[in-house]
Amino acid sequence: MRARDAGLGWGDLPAGSRNAITDVPGVRVGHVTLRRGEDIRTGVTAVLPHGGNLFRERVPAAVEIVNGFGKSAGLMQVQELGELETPLLLTNTFGVAACTEALIRHAIVEEPRVGRDTSTVNPVVMECNDGYLNDIQALAVTPADAAAAIQAAGEDMNSGAVGAGTGMSCFGLKGGVGTSSRRLRIGGDNFHLGALVLANYGRAGDLRLPDGRRIPAGAGSPERGSVIVVIATDVPLDHRQLRRVAARAGAGIAWTGSFWGHGSGDLALAFSTAERRPHEAPQPILTRRVLAEAGIDALFRAAAEATAEAVMDAIVAAEPMTGFRGHHRAALRDVLAAMPS
Amino acid sequence: MRARDAGLGWGDLPAGSRNAITDVPGVRVGHVTLRRGEDIRTGVTAVLPHGGNLFRERVPAAVEIVNGFGKSAGLMQVQELGELETPLLLTNTFGVAACTEALIRHAIVEEPRVGRDTSTVNPVVMECNDGYLNDIQALAVTPADAAAAIQAAGEDMNSGAVGAGTGMSCFGLKGGVGTSSRRLRIGGDNFHLGALVLANYGRAGDLRLPDGRRIPAGAGSPERGSVIVVIATDVPLDHRQLRRVAARAGAGIAWTGSFWGHGSGDLALAFSTAERRPHEAPQPILTRRVLAEAGIDALFRAAAEATAEAVMDAIVAAEPMTGFRGHHRAALRDVLAAMPS
Amino acid sequence: MRARDAGLGWGDLPAGSRNAITDVPGVRVGHVTLRRGEDIRTGVTAVLPHGGNLFRERVPAAVEIVNGFGKSAGLMQVQELGELETPLLLTNTFGVAACTEALIRHAIVEEPRVGRDTSTVNPVVMECNDGYLNDIQALAVTPADAAAAIQAAGEDMNSGAVGAGTGMSCFGLKGGVGTSSRRLRIGGDNFHLGALVLANYGRAGDLRLPDGRRIPAGAGSPERGSVIVVIATDVPLDHRQLRRVAARAGAGIAWTGSFWGHGSGDLALAFSTAERRPHEAPQPILTRRVLAEAGIDALFRAAAEATAEAVMDAIVAAEPMTGFRGHHRAALRDVLAAMPS
Amino acid sequence: MRARDAGLGWGDLPAGSRNAITDVPGVRVGHVTLRRGEDIRTGVTAVLPHGGNLFRERVPAAVEIVNGFGKSAGLMQVQELGELETPLLLTNTFGVAACTEALIRHAIVEEPRVGRDTSTVNPVVMECNDGYLNDIQALAVTPADAAAAIQAAGEDMNSGAVGAGTGMSCFGLKGGVGTSSRRLRIGGDNFHLGALVLANYGRAGDLRLPDGRRIPAGAGSPERGSVIVVIATDVPLDHRQLRRVAARAGAGIAWTGSFWGHGSGDLALAFSTAERRPHEAPQPILTRRVLAEAGIDALFRAAAEATAEAVMDAIVAAEPMTGFRGHHRAALRDVLAAMPS
Repeated sequence: MRARDAGLGWGDLPAGSRNAITDVPGVRVGHVTLRRGEDIRTGVTAVLPHGGNLFRERVPAAVEIVNGFGKSAGLMQVQELGELETPLLLTNTFGVAACTEALIRHAIVEEPRVGRDTSTVNPVVMECNDGYLNDIQALAVTPADAAAAIQAAGEDMNSGAVGAGTGMSCFGLKGGVGTSSRRLRIGGDNFHLGALVLANYGRAGDLRLPDGRRIPAGAGSPERGSVIVVIATDVPLDHRQLRRVAARAGAGIAWTGSFWGHGSGDLALAFSTAERRPHEAPQPILTRRVLAEAGIDALFRAAAEATAEAVMDAIVAAEPMTGFRGHHRAALRDVLAAMPS
Repeated sequence: MRARDAGLGWGDLPAGSRNAITDVPGVRVGHVTLRRGEDIRTGVTAVLPHGGNLFRERVPAAVEIVNGFGKSAGLMQVQELGELETPLLLTNTFGVAACTEALIRHAIVEEPRVGRDTSTVNPVVMECNDGYLNDIQALAVTPADAAAAIQAAGEDMNSGAVGAGTGMSCFGLKGGVGTSSRRLRIGGDNFHLGALVLANYGRAGDLRLPDGRRIPAGAGSPERGSVIVVIATDVPLDHRQLRRVAARAGAGIAWTGSFWGHGSGDLALAFSTAERRPHEAPQPILTRRVLAEAGIDALFRAAAEATAEAVMDAIVAAEPMTGFRGHHRAALRDVLAAMPS
Repeated sequence: MRARDAGLGWGDLPAGSRNAITDVPGVRVGHVTLRRGEDIRTGVTAVLPHGGNLFRERVPAAVEIVNGFGKSAGLMQVQELGELETPLLLTNTFGVAACTEALIRHAIVEEPRVGRDTSTVNPVVMECNDGYLNDIQALAVTPADAAAAIQAAGEDMNSGAVGAGTGMSCFGLKGGVGTSSRRLRIGGDNFHLGALVLANYGRAGDLRLPDGRRIPAGAGSPERGSVIVVIATDVPLDHRQLRRVAARAGAGIAWTGSFWGHGSGDLALAFSTAERRPHEAPQPILTRRVLAEAGIDALFRAAAEATAEAVMDAIVAAEPMTGFRGHHRAALRDVLAAMPS
Repeated sequence: MRARDAGLGWGDLPAGSRNAITDVPGVRVGHVTLRRGEDIRTGVTAVLPHGGNLFRERVPAAVEIVNGFGKSAGLMQVQELGELETPLLLTNTFGVAACTEALIRHAIVEEPRVGRDTSTVNPVVMECNDGYLNDIQALAVTPADAAAAIQAAGEDMNSGAVGAGTGMSCFGLKGGVGTSSRRLRIGGDNFHLGALVLANYGRAGDLRLPDGRRIPAGAGSPERGSVIVVIATDVPLDHRQLRRVAARAGAGIAWTGSFWGHGSGDLALAFSTAERRPHEAPQPILTRRVLAEAGIDALFRAAAEATAEAVMDAIVAAEPMTGFRGHHRAALRDVLAAMPS
């Protein structure tokens, strides 16, 4: 079930045909889900800006740190150089090292000169803590899992308790991965902006639906969550603009009832697929297309709307789950079904 | 009329007795309102962290820039040194220079050694563009107006189209100055956090009330707004913590339906009154009280709630106004009265 | 006398023909010097990125804050939007308000719709504290002085105790305004990078010359200085790159012996003249030229070298001065002449 | 051989008795050096703020990113929360994942509730690229190596081509790990500030010695370096102050002739040992000691001096080395011996 099937669409702009980050042409998403025994409820989600060799053909990107209580890798260099040169991997907090190693090995395969005859590579791995439903101390994620998530990437993607979202919680309910997109019309041409969230944040009782209802359900536990937002667009944007767009993910998160809690590592990464930048530039001075700033409000609105709806999508799609130590998370859909209308 | 009188209170935490920033002991607010002829609709609002000599007894402070499309003065030094050494002044965009001059002259009176036998002074002036209702090119605000706002500061304050809020617009309706507070209980003691907003942001139709209703009214015009949020608390917080608290004003603004538009200079400044720091420290190593970080979530929630309710307060209190070039802004209360229930 | 005449050139790259920021085509500099009686030793320096209407034709720009103990105006918006829309004005700390007002009035003349039918304007004014030689409490700088500095701008400029540099001190010696430039060869074409400094920083005894000599002279007084660095280039750079280039001014300042003292507001602003951006973009998606990142090291080196040499230029050109309260600053050239060789 | 033995001490303040970061009471340093066959020239260096359980007793810390072309881990959370909760590990770029895993396992041993009944842990790992002398694609560093570096930590430490410094290059010469310290007298009490650098930066020919001599030697290769600076002090400093102190490492690096090259990930982390912060605070409001800001210039000078001298220490101590693909780096001491005096 998707957010809109449950009447939980958000905002005014039209959605893309898949209502997913993969509406942005070229973007692919892959999941590896790890569910073993009573205790392992985790996984990896890969987001690929395009289907080619990312080390050789980078895309412009930027990061906004809403609340920096988190352990994501690779963000500093994105902030300095404004580019992605690996797929994005999302996983649990203690899976970052395995994913980092996988991205290094992936880059060496893509470009054997890495670290020898050219620069090293900047793996970007983002994480949330799934330690309530998952035995995070097991360090269950391996480099092979991460490689498999990249391998699995395609244009169709599932939402809910899959991939990195497997063991996540959101507002005391079952969380997970969700997505949404918006269509944009700029200068007579069609563009898309899509968001993918790893939703693992929010206190029980704080959830606010698009119609303003608050959901007073969800099992309490101290928030040690996080939310990761990945925003993709085919609108040509430079680094400064991408950071501004990424920041609006924070507004979308707030719309869902959050105030970005202390213990929640909330951050957003935005990239544009409008340009592929060769690792070695063909000329010393390049020509780039870029959105005129006056048009950026449409992208801000799209980013906030798609983020908020992607959160709805994650928690609507998620099935209830029991995991580590018998901890349990109910599903929003069951809570909604039980609410008086 | 206050926000709660209109059923527009926000959130779960209890409000202070005035439900105003002046519930934080020692904080004072003063307005000077300029309404002249058809064209001048502007003013100055002063916020004083305490009633003493601010140059000689500073308070810790921090700034969060949500969207930096603005012309406020003095923020860089607050970010570096973490202190306020003047009253805060709020005014229109072209009144910053006059208010800056007023704060310099005010500091020289408070401490005649300023810039001669001791450091200069860092005037903090924050602004929004009231150019829709006010003839901003008239540069109507004078240093004398700014001084009068400081002089007028007291514990009772009005909301709505007064002081710096006189000519402001919000979601296509009449905006202004608003305020709200929250009571906090920490370690058996009572504390307060209060917010004052200068609300001049938001597209017509985007306003979202606490019950989830969107208000599809308001006259359209390109957003060239802004919102300034001042947060005061008597909880002891250091600079890093104050910045984190200030950031949650952004969540409160988002709760009201905003996505922090491109043309809107949205920023928050937070200060703590728990400590007065002498201009010349009495010893080389000082002792300070500071909140244990685990308790900061209550302040985050309070900051978001008080900010959102302060916006409601501003637009509920504001009367309709006609000003420059016959431009008109309706009042929310009239819109609400006309809506089908 | 210029830095190179005194053997105080810095670095390896060749200088431009004027060895001045005005080697960057289109850049103009103007000074207004205020010397009255015993007490007034101050002024204004204007830097114009081009000779046209800056509100209508902006240039890309970025800011690096090395030490934020300062009161400059307009930097926040440059950081958010990455553009200059007024001339740059440099002055004393208490002259910022007058210069801000002058820039607002200047913009209204350039574009009468400012704040009425289009956005307001972001005046950029940078400052140092000349309160040792100048009676800063006199607030001697007027909007008319600021306007005159803009009016006076041309391609020939003086260094030393002129304009904003009139009352400045540097390493306990007489400081002022200095400049230097570097020629760059990129892809077979010629470019320039130039720096202009307002040098008012450094403890007596810390000055280090290009040959490594330290200058153990200069009258001690608590450092309440600052240094402002303006960097201009005709290399096409985007906002992220301009910030990186601006940061290297900090290295140049350090080369002269500074560790960026606590009380010194040290900052740099860089702009590129390679592009003029219309206030209202002609199309929704624009095409821009930008340097391939691999070539940026040459600009980093040029920025550091030109900054360090511009400081030498300021203090070599400056004559000794007596001012407020009989305070006196010696000239480096006299100190050097008296040193054993 | 230490820097001062070669006449390469830097600055005016007195050094501590070891002239090392371990002059700060409690600080320990451990190296694991990996030299295998022709190709492996790498290692790990651990810096421990104290000898206790860091997860349970954190220390205040802050980060300054001089040039963010790097892949260090854990910095975002230090910036948000201002604390270290693991030892610091330094290693090569592709060793970050192994060191991250080691720190997670180390924290679980120190506190078995990590990620289960309390928060997860934020591993801080900093890196430089030693791919010129070391076969970085071999991913030679293992979690066991990282654990061994922590285990090896003590108050006596070696400089030069040891630990993380084994394969590093600096100004085209052999680089490595270096250290230096300064004694400070504040309010009648003795304090220390120490720096440890992992020096792997700078173009051949740019090195500048304390007496101003430039060293026109060193084998050229494109700079893909980095420099990591760790600063420790027992002066009580809060997060904002620690960031300001960390920033002065950038001045020290510049003093050695660098302009912080594009390809060099230059960053500094500073911590204070004056306070140990329990993971769970004993009361909701705490009392902390903190340096009065007016005294911070002494720490700024100490940080710049100790950083610059630590670089000298690294390259004076380093022996010449041949490694991967027969690449060779000469030693500064041999270059100096060959220079005409």
